[in-house]
Amino acid sequence: MFRKGELTQRAIVDQALYLACRVGLEALSFGSLAKQMQMSKSGIFSRFNSAQALQIEVIREYRRRFEKQVFYPGIAAPSVLPRLLAMFFHWTRHVTDSSGNGCFYISCAIEYASRSGAIRDELLAGAAAWREALVTCAQSAIKAGHLHCDSDAEQIVHEMYGLVLALHHNARFVRDPHSDMRAVHAFRRLIDGLQAASYESIYIPPYIACRR
Amino acid sequence: MFRKGELTQRAIVDQALYLACRVGLEALSFGSLAKQMQMSKSGIFSRFNSAQALQIEVIREYRRRFEKQVFYPGIAAPSVLPRLLAMFFHWTRHVTDSSGNGCFYISCAIEYASRSGAIRDELLAGAAAWREALVTCAQSAIKAGHLHCDSDAEQIVHEMYGLVLALHHNARFVRDPHSDMRAVHAFRRLIDGLQAASYESIYIPPYIACRR
Repeated sequence: MFRKGELTQRAIVDQALYLACRVGLEALSFGSLAKQMQMSKSGIFSRFNSAQALQIEVIREYRRRFEKQVFYPGIAAPSVLPRLLAMFFHWTRHVTDSSGNGCFYISCAIEYASRSGAIRDELLAGAAAWREALVTCAQSAIKAGHLHCDSDAEQIVHEMYGLVLALHHNARFVRDPHSDMRAVHAFRRLIDGLQAASYESIYIPPYIACRR
Repeated sequence: MFRKGELTQRAIVDQALYLACRVGLEALSFGSLAKQMQMSKSGIFSRFNSAQALQIEVIREYRRRFEKQVFYPGIAAPSVLPRLLAMFFHWTRHVTDSSGNGCFYISCAIEYASRSGAIRDELLAGAAAWREALVTCAQSAIKAGHLHCDSDAEQIVHEMYGLVLALHHNARFVRDPHSDMRAVHAFRRLIDGLQAASYESIYIPPYIACRR
């Protein structure tokens, strides 16, 4: 059970994340948030003390959601190549889900590309943890003989990132209805080219098969 | 020769583009611009009448620069596959050039993903013209027999976009010193896999060869 204060704090962070996905993390203001929450500005200020403290909380909340929607369902798939594929597919689903939020790490990466400080560090830590999980999984797929022994795990993850960034760009900005299909097609080409001959054909989770 | 009024207008747009690359197009204000230009706010207002008119001018100025730095040097390369490669390499160079601006189309795509209106339309028109030039070039490379006859030009361009987005993300946000090398490596893999057997080995422009 949560106390009322905690529930209010959670509701503020939820609303702040919703707003930040639309206007950017930097444009998040106590004023606009107070208006949306029908609270006083000082009521919000008393809970977070500074805009930066609120921004950090928003990033942490996003990280929890990302782990719940992408990381845990991904690593629940059978080891090892199917797991890498599941991580990719849950990620693509998250990027284009019906909330319309997109991937907060991707949008914040643009906003904080040329800045420094605690907010960029917090974002980078979350994104780096995800990248590391992908690299570890790709390395295991190479070790297990599912991917060619001369494959480069870091390079595979770099290219997976590119596909997800292209999906994010195409689905949200260009609004191309074929974005999903293009991402899956490119990923199949990437993995097919790297798959060790001894490993059986690529595993495509059922929900992605229906979306094609 | 330009008249003084035109020179002032150009200087304002230059400064506005510089600022917009750092804080976003939406955060561009007459106030901050006036401060940077040591002009009065009304002096800027009298030239552009609205924030939107200034934002549109900034996008048009970026489009002229993009054409000068990426499009024209790209299409000057020999037809057809070398031209596609040159377009890609000039694009990657633009994304990571020393100005630190990155690709304004990429950063604005995030900012205007969930918005509608004249600014998004102007951005989309510029980005779409570039995408179309790439697709046309890829189609010609397929017709000329430089790429496999069953290649899909739209898919190739989608994947090229992914590589440039990953480069932009990695070089600017993650600040990975291997970003350039990873982009070239991935592009080689993409084109090698699509290259018709009859076509000679891949052409890498000299400036990219030195950067590897």
